[in-house]
Amino acid sequence: MYSSLKRFLIGKPLKSTELGEQKLTKLKALAILSSDALSSVAYGTEQILLVLATVGTIAFWYSLPIAVGVLILLVALILSYRQIIYTYPHGGGAYVVSRSNLGINPGLISGGSLLVDYILTVAVSVSAGTDAITSAFPSLHQYTVEIAIVFVIFITILNLRGVTESASVLAYPVYLFVLALIVLIGFGMYRIATGQVPADVHTPVGTAVSGITLFLLLRAFSSGCSALTGVEAISNAIPNFKEPAAKNAATTLVMMGGILAALFSGITFLAYWYGIAPKADETVVSQIAADVFGRNFMYYFVQGTTALILVLAANTGFSAFPLLAYNLASDKYMPRMYLMRGDRLGYSNGIITLGLASIVLIIAFKGETEQLIPLYAVGVFIPFTLSQTGMTLKWLREKPEGWMGKMLTNFLGALITLTVLIILFLTKFGQVWSILIFLPIIVFIFHRIRNHYDDVGEQLRLNPSETPEKIEGNVVVVPVAGITKVVEQSLNYAESIGDYVFAVYVASDHESEIQMKEKWEKWKPDIRLVTVSSSYRELTRPLIRLINMIEAKAEENDYTVTVVIPQFITKKSWHNILHNQSSVLLRTYLLHKKGVIVTTVPYRFKK
Amino acid sequence: MYSSLKRFLIGKPLKSTELGEQKLTKLKALAILSSDALSSVAYGTEQILLVLATVGTIAFWYSLPIAVGVLILLVALILSYRQIIYTYPHGGGAYVVSRSNLGINPGLISGGSLLVDYILTVAVSVSAGTDAITSAFPSLHQYTVEIAIVFVIFITILNLRGVTESASVLAYPVYLFVLALIVLIGFGMYRIATGQVPADVHTPVGTAVSGITLFLLLRAFSSGCSALTGVEAISNAIPNFKEPAAKNAATTLVMMGGILAALFSGITFLAYWYGIAPKADETVVSQIAADVFGRNFMYYFVQGTTALILVLAANTGFSAFPLLAYNLASDKYMPRMYLMRGDRLGYSNGIITLGLASIVLIIAFKGETEQLIPLYAVGVFIPFTLSQTGMTLKWLREKPEGWMGKMLTNFLGALITLTVLIILFLTKFGQVWSILIFLPIIVFIFHRIRNHYDDVGEQLRLNPSETPEKIEGNVVVVPVAGITKVVEQSLNYAESIGDYVFAVYVASDHESEIQMKEKWEKWKPDIRLVTVSSSYRELTRPLIRLINMIEAKAEENDYTVTVVIPQFITKKSWHNILHNQSSVLLRTYLLHKKGVIVTTVPYRFKK
Repeated sequence: MYSSLKRFLIGKPLKSTELGEQKLTKLKALAILSSDALSSVAYGTEQILLVLATVGTIAFWYSLPIAVGVLILLVALILSYRQIIYTYPHGGGAYVVSRSNLGINPGLISGGSLLVDYILTVAVSVSAGTDAITSAFPSLHQYTVEIAIVFVIFITILNLRGVTESASVLAYPVYLFVLALIVLIGFGMYRIATGQVPADVHTPVGTAVSGITLFLLLRAFSSGCSALTGVEAISNAIPNFKEPAAKNAATTLVMMGGILAALFSGITFLAYWYGIAPKADETVVSQIAADVFGRNFMYYFVQGTTALILVLAANTGFSAFPLLAYNLASDKYMPRMYLMRGDRLGYSNGIITLGLASIVLIIAFKGETEQLIPLYAVGVFIPFTLSQTGMTLKWLREKPEGWMGKMLTNFLGALITLTVLIILFLTKFGQVWSILIFLPIIVFIFHRIRNHYDDVGEQLRLNPSETPEKIEGNVVVVPVAGITKVVEQSLNYAESIGDYVFAVYVASDHESEIQMKEKWEKWKPDIRLVTVSSSYRELTRPLIRLINMIEAKAEENDYTVTVVIPQFITKKSWHNILHNQSSVLLRTYLLHKKGVIVTTVPYRFKK
Repeated sequence: MYSSLKRFLIGKPLKSTELGEQKLTKLKALAILSSDALSSVAYGTEQILLVLATVGTIAFWYSLPIAVGVLILLVALILSYRQIIYTYPHGGGAYVVSRSNLGINPGLISGGSLLVDYILTVAVSVSAGTDAITSAFPSLHQYTVEIAIVFVIFITILNLRGVTESASVLAYPVYLFVLALIVLIGFGMYRIATGQVPADVHTPVGTAVSGITLFLLLRAFSSGCSALTGVEAISNAIPNFKEPAAKNAATTLVMMGGILAALFSGITFLAYWYGIAPKADETVVSQIAADVFGRNFMYYFVQGTTALILVLAANTGFSAFPLLAYNLASDKYMPRMYLMRGDRLGYSNGIITLGLASIVLIIAFKGETEQLIPLYAVGVFIPFTLSQTGMTLKWLREKPEGWMGKMLTNFLGALITLTVLIILFLTKFGQVWSILIFLPIIVFIFHRIRNHYDDVGEQLRLNPSETPEKIEGNVVVVPVAGITKVVEQSLNYAESIGDYVFAVYVASDHESEIQMKEKWEKWKPDIRLVTVSSSYRELTRPLIRLINMIEAKAEENDYTVTVVIPQFITKKSWHNILHNQSSVLLRTYLLHKKGVIVTTVPYRFKK
């Protein structure tokens, strides 16, 4: 039943050779990898205006120069990441770049902070999308958390079905959103150009604003930078692209940058020209759409696609997280299970981990994840800075042809992202300090995992100079609870593999001990029965004492000790609570505390 | 760490021979087995007055004849149960009596309804006690559920420590409560006798009351009967008494009956004489105490001990439930685990089950379990009726000396309890109908469990005419993931037990297959390596296919097939998430789906 449900949800398994068919074209990749970045357009301008509003509407004209600053940052990032994609065509993005050029800890800091960031992406964007829906249908408001969880599960399943399939489904809403905003901006501009809308600006550009401070402008700028999260996703996911992967990825990155720049500047300009001020109960985009179109079909089309893209921004996380986890796991900083491709060739364990972690976050914050947004911006600007710095050093060290230009591009990128990072810390320390605690913890865990795998590798390595322990024979111990078919089957098997066989009976009182001995004598006189009494009504300890005695003798003579335990295989799973408790306990105890070999002989019930 | 915590909470294990020391004296038994019945005094009178209050205070004099009715019922129950105790001195109460005399289904109905009843007892009484506490300290009101759960856990641990220990701790509050009520009643009576309190009755006995109906009086009577739940507990717990167990239990029962009768009639009479009417925010006992003593130390003493006894009433359930579960389990109607005595000689599994089930109930009802009280009365009058009927039939069948008197006693008991049961169903059907659904379900489950154990017994029984399958030799399959020390160790063991050894390598691609073959040729040329390719990146299925092939051949020649799987024993438990996932999966799959023998070779990491 479980497996047919799994088939239904995620589809039939794919052969490893079908991997090529699962790769993405540029258009599909653009849809799923840029949804995070593009969705920022829905709130980027608003974030800037909200900060400026603390001074007054008189300061709103500053949104234009700030937007220019954001655009410069965007161009720097796109150019820098383009170079990263070509230089590291196997993906891994900031983690691989920082690790190769700056050393292992900067690499782990980048990797760890991006992992956390993708979890935040999913939680924040799904919550935001759910908010958009529950604002439209207030009766659903009490179910915010449940709806958000259903969305996460839906996106998780979609991703478990495979990257192409999720791209095919999710491409439509992303392109519809882009279309909606292009129509909005285009029509809005057309009306301005044709003079239908005289400028309704609060104050013209350049108006002197008393009370404005550099700190405030920097805060507004850093809020606007939240529109740039998600730009790095493509560099992590290069292996998902069709060949030539690096070239396709680079082209997709530039396309994304172009669209993002156009939409962001368009919205910011329209907000300025139409004299929009942020309101508590209506978004800036909604106000622009209402002004441009009136409340007609196009208005609702813009609103609907915006809600959708907010939810789907989560998908970028689902594309990038598993590949990043794969890169960390292949360097042994994360558990090996993140290396395995699932039935549909995605890294299922990464996908499931991301889904679960974001559900936990949504529940913990009761669906109110807005407070996590600044954390999420810091989490992405740390790897931005580290990877650009790494690239700069790389060019300086290697000096390939044309290194000067490349170096300057990345250096400029590093400088700008570092500046943004500092601004973020200065202006929003109260909301982002926690990253200074959990990032070191994550890096510490990475090291612990790596150390453990290294220790294990060393212990498992064959040493040609060591001769393996030789085995002269086997002593087999069979705990028996009575005289039954299962015991007979286990004893037969024990005799076939062992040189010495002991049946052990743990008696709870003297009477049952004598009875058992008598019965045994008649039944299997050639197999030695050892009875041990248990004063504490306990099975494991008396057995262990006996095994200790046998083991001492066996080791002297290079004999192994094997304990044969029967296990009932029940016909129905609920029957399990009626059986096997003591055999499971005994087995666990013997393996973990004693290190003896345990053989499980299954006995299948027919009913 | 786990085991030292366990030691701290429940104490060091006791030897089976120390069982005798764990038995109860009459005084301790009275304390823990009568707390449920005695605590009913705290609310019994109030329940009657509440029903009468629907007509008006004019009807309150009816509480006296109704109390007489309840007392008659009490006497009948005590006499009947006294006979049950002498006739079935091994305990088991209503379950054993009904099963032996009426047949298995009446027995299971009695047993099932008592099991549920004890769970209800714990949930209801702990919630009531918690209410008493949170009424005194309203700031604790928001933590009602948490406080109730802490109480249940406390009582559970106390009972896991053993029956004498819990009796020693719990005897004080029970006797203090009895003392408090005796002083209250005695002083109240003294003041009446000395003429200090003229009768303040609402209406004298015999006043004609318009609007009073038989139905209403029956309702009041059945509400008063809730004071009699818990009377049967002693008959279930006879094995906990010191020898002579039956005689001691019977004496204890009569003592309990006497105390219960005295307290109940005293409180009912004082309530009448002092003209008490039930109030929403103050209990009847509290009003009496305030009238008799004024709000001085004695008043708070009565209130405090009342709250305590309400919580401790739960303990009666903890004494009776595990013994009842033991009786059902020894007849194979419940899982075998309820037969096992724990470290401290109590039936720990029963105690833990009861604790968990009542916590679930408290959480499900958010600590408001008052609505369960009628259900709980029905749940106890069903076994009352069945056991008395059973006893009646027994006397009729066996006709021992003096059977006539005994038969009449039990017949009267059966008649009265049946009447109460019918009244309960007639007057409170809306609150008790659910028992008609879940009781059949419980009985059905009992039968399913019994059938399964019977099936298993039959399958395990040795049949002398069947010759056991003979074993000519062993084929051993060792899945290998690479060339390491663990693999070497497993192969050595496999060679020592097997006549044919196959190493199996599941290759994910052609290249790794060739590489492995080459390395193997150099390393272990004498062991046959079989490589299978896995198109779906899966370990289990290709291995199963191979094992199927080997098995077919092996079975023809009476060979067994054993799969040797290494398991890493990690030094720290968190390391487990880094290992063993595939070996555990493989093992489960092989045992459950294939029924092949699985040998686990532990490999212990040194760091």
